Formats: sequence, structure tokens, C-alpha cells
Amino acid sequence: MRIAVSFDAQTLMSTLGARLMSVADGEVKIALPFSERLCQQHGYVHAGAITSIADSACGYAALTMAPAECEVVTAEFKVNFVRPAIGERFVAIGRVQSAGKLLTVCTGEVRAYAGEAYKVVAIIQATIVRVTAA
Amino acid sequence: MRIAVSFDAQTLMSTLGARLMSVADGEVKIALPFSERLCQQHGYVHAGAITSIADSACGYAALTMAPAECEVVTAEFKVNFVRPAIGERFVAIGRVQSAGKLLTVCTGEVRAYAGEAYKVVAIIQATIVRVTAA
Amino acid sequence: MRIAVSFDAQTLMSTLGARLMSVADGEVKIALPFSERLCQQHGYVHAGAITSIADSACGYAALTMAPAECEVVTAEFKVNFVRPAIGERFVAIGRVQSAGKLLTVCTGEVRAYAGEAYKVVAIIQATIVRVTAA
Amino acid sequence: MRIAVSFDAQTLMSTLGARLMSVADGEVKIALPFSERLCQQHGYVHAGAITSIADSACGYAALTMAPAECEVVTAEFKVNFVRPAIGERFVAIGRVQSAGKLLTVCTGEVRAYAGEAYKVVAIIQATIVRVTAA
Repeated sequence: MRIAVSFDAQTLMSTLGARLMSVADGEVKIALPFSERLCQQHGYVHAGAITSIADSACGYAALTMAPAECEVVTAEFKVNFVRPAIGERFVAIGRVQSAGKLLTVCTGEVRAYAGEAYKVVAIIQATIVRVTAA
Repeated sequence: MRIAVSFDAQTLMSTLGARLMSVADGEVKIALPFSERLCQQHGYVHAGAITSIADSACGYAALTMAPAECEVVTAEFKVNFVRPAIGERFVAIGRVQSAGKLLTVCTGEVRAYAGEAYKVVAIIQATIVRVTAA
Repeated sequence: MRIAVSFDAQTLMSTLGARLMSVADGEVKIALPFSERLCQQHGYVHAGAITSIADSACGYAALTMAPAECEVVTAEFKVNFVRPAIGERFVAIGRVQSAGKLLTVCTGEVRAYAGEAYKVVAIIQATIVRVTAA
Repeated sequence: MRIAVSFDAQTLMSTLGARLMSVADGEVKIALPFSERLCQQHGYVHAGAITSIADSACGYAALTMAPAECEVVTAEFKVNFVRPAIGERFVAIGRVQSAGKLLTVCTGEVRAYAGEAYKVVAIIQATIVRVTAA
């Protein structure tokens, strides 16, 4: 619930056309339909758009494991782009690998779908910090 | 010149409101004015938007060092977010650190400006691959 | 076979006391017994020793997927240290996630064992380049 | 002073043959002479040995900016290997880029020397966490 509210407050997500797809303990999925507004010079989706949904998926996955009084911010991430981001829609999955008192480490991937088939186009490893909400 | 043409073809850059600010051998700057359309849940600019301009700045910095018949794609990057992205405008700087025949390594930063003063909000280290244009 | 030969030629591995534990298609494990010679200032195993076996495990995992005439070198990696490296022995696992013609992306982890139980102490994401052997 | 004491307690550093070279506010250098005991399969110094001194240089650079009652541990780092590590000796430099209350971000490089001339062989970006010493 707090994740849906927070997601709706992320104006970048609506600017990109992304939507929150699923939230489970330690795992969050975000969907992004292809749009010609999100591309790099070859017409593939830009690494920045792919990273945006991967980052939010990891951050919200971390938030599912955080106490109610905490919020989270991304300290850093690393993303590999393993294929051109070509597809009808993209799904970012963020998963908690380790949740410490302070730092949560998530891994995840972004899948490019053509119909029901997908290929992984990006792999992320992220460090999320818990902060006490004001 | 080829960089300006390529930048104009990156539709994500215009969707975000970013513009190419300067191109020199081994260094490219991209500017992004603050917009309420680019934020995360606290009203700061989203890590994904900051990363998008940092990635493009690094990619184009790499392209300044590549032979005319080559294009470049991002293999991977790592970004640290060292302060909330609060500012009137943001400037991403990408600089070539090492240009091999195949891989170019760039570092860079994103600065948040209030008037003429700035603070660094993000630090990037990226690996760019040269590909032969089709 | 070529992996065992190559591993034996890595003098750092014997200096650290590491040994090749298993090799399968796309997955390699390397074991490192605890030693007081490998520590940081608190008596835990140093991040550098943990990273050394994680890097070699990823590199050799990539090599299992490479044509016979190729060798591999590490272009870059990113490692998160999620717990102090305390244990009787450590096992690094490297797994291929994506094998392109040029770049292979591996992920992996290092486990710290106390008897048969283990905890993950490090998580790695690495980019390996194929090179043609001289 | 506390850095020299801590460095001497890092047994991996003496196992590798590394020594603390200089300590200044926000910048630390560590030297490592070439040794045949530190190599990968081609006779170059192993990425793990290069990373070990780069990590310690970054960690100690962070420690120079930390309050006296704090210690530091590495949360994560990312290293690019931009040339084969061939040289008579190697010098790792770690520099603080941003020191927050909790997280310090350092960048650095490892230089391979032949006489007085050097080439950069590795580039690091690291996140260091302050912890209260027990």
C-alpha cells in the first residue's frame, strides 16, 4: 500500500509511462510499454529509461523489507546492458538479496517482451539505504 | 556534429528536457533543467533521470574518441548518488579515462546548480563498447 | 581441463591458498580456507581476498562458454560485501548470465561456511571480455 | 597514525607485499612491488591483487575523514581493468569524493610503474560505511 502511494508520487514513472505491476515481500515488478519517446539514437529504449525502472524496482523491493517508519534511498547501482532494449514492453524485477539494518542489497533484471516470450536486456545490482522518514 | 545529430535522435533526451551543452575531445556535457515531471517520491529528481544524462554524457564522450566508422553502446555503468538531486538545473559531465580499441572507460559526475553554485549529486564510472555502424 | 591448467598458472590463487572446486558449463566454484594471512584489521578475511576468488570464479565460468581458441580477461566487476567475511572456509561461485560474442556477464557470490552451514558474504556482477589467444 | 596501525594489522597486505606509502587528508597511497606470487595465468598481476590495494587505499582515504571514534568498512566497489597489470611496481591511490555522515564515496586508480613512468591499469569507485568502533 505505501509502495503504491510512493510509486504514484514518482512523477518520472508516469512521464516514462511505467506502472507498478506487482509487490511481494522482497520482490517488486514494474512494467514499461515501449514508446518512441524513450529511445536512444537507434530506436531502442534508452539505457536511462531501462535503468529508471530497474532502480525503482530495487528500491521498492528494499522498502518491502524495511520497518514502517523507514524510507529508502538508492546509494548506488551498477547495471549491465546485455542486449539492445527491443520489445513491446519491458518488465523490471528487483529482488532483495541481503537486508541489513542500514543497507539493503538488491539484484534484478529487465526483461524485454515480444508477446509472452522475453529476453533479459539488463542486469542490476543495487545498494539501498534506509533513512528515517521525517 | 555527428554527436549533435545522434543526440537529437535520442528521444528520451527530449522527453526529459535535456540538451547537449558542450562537446570537446574526450568530454561531453549535457544539461537538464529541473522539472516536476522527473521526480521521485520526495520531489527530488529521480536517480533514473540523473543516470540518463550521465550515461549519455559518457557515451558521447567515448564517441568523440572513436573512429568515424564506429558507433558506441553502453556495456555497463555504476553510479553513486551522493546527495539528493535538488537544484534548478543539472549538468552531467562525461570524460574519457581510457580508450582502447574495443572498450572505452569513462568517469563523470552530475552537478546540481542553484544559480552559479553547484554540488555534485552523482558520480559515474562507465564502460562503453565500440561497434561498427551498419 | 584448460580451466584447471589455467587455474594452476594463477600464482595468486596458490599464494592465497585457493583451489578450484568444480567446473560445469557456465558455473565455476573456487574454495578458500580461512587463513590468518588473508585478513583485514579486525581479523576477518579482507575484501581483496574475497574478491580475488569471486573474480576468478566469474572469469572461469565465462571461459567454460568460450570457443576453444579464446581466452578471457576481466573488463570490470562490482562487488557488494554484505556481511563480515567470518568463516572456516569460503566458496566463490561464478555463473554466466549472458554470453555474447565479445562480452560475457557473470554474477556470483561468496559463501562463508561454518561446518555445512553458510552465509553469503559477497555478491559480484562482472563483465568478462573474450580475447583471441596469441 | 591510526591508519598505519590498522594497515599493519591487515595481514593480507603483508601477504601480498604491499606497504602504506602516503596518507594525507582524503588521499591514501599504497605500493605493491611486482611479485611472481601475485599473477594470473599470463604472468600479469591478478585483478584480485590490484583490487586489494585499491580497496585498502579507498578505505583508508575514507578513514582520514572520519571522526576518531569511527572505523570504516567497504560496502561495495566497482573496478575497471583498463590495461594488463604489467610493471615493476604498482601504486594504488584512493581519494575521497564525498564524505557523508554514513557513507563515503571514494574514487581511485592503480598505476603500473616502469621506472618513473606509469600507466593507469585500474579505476575504482567505492562506497565505504562508517561504523562505530566497539
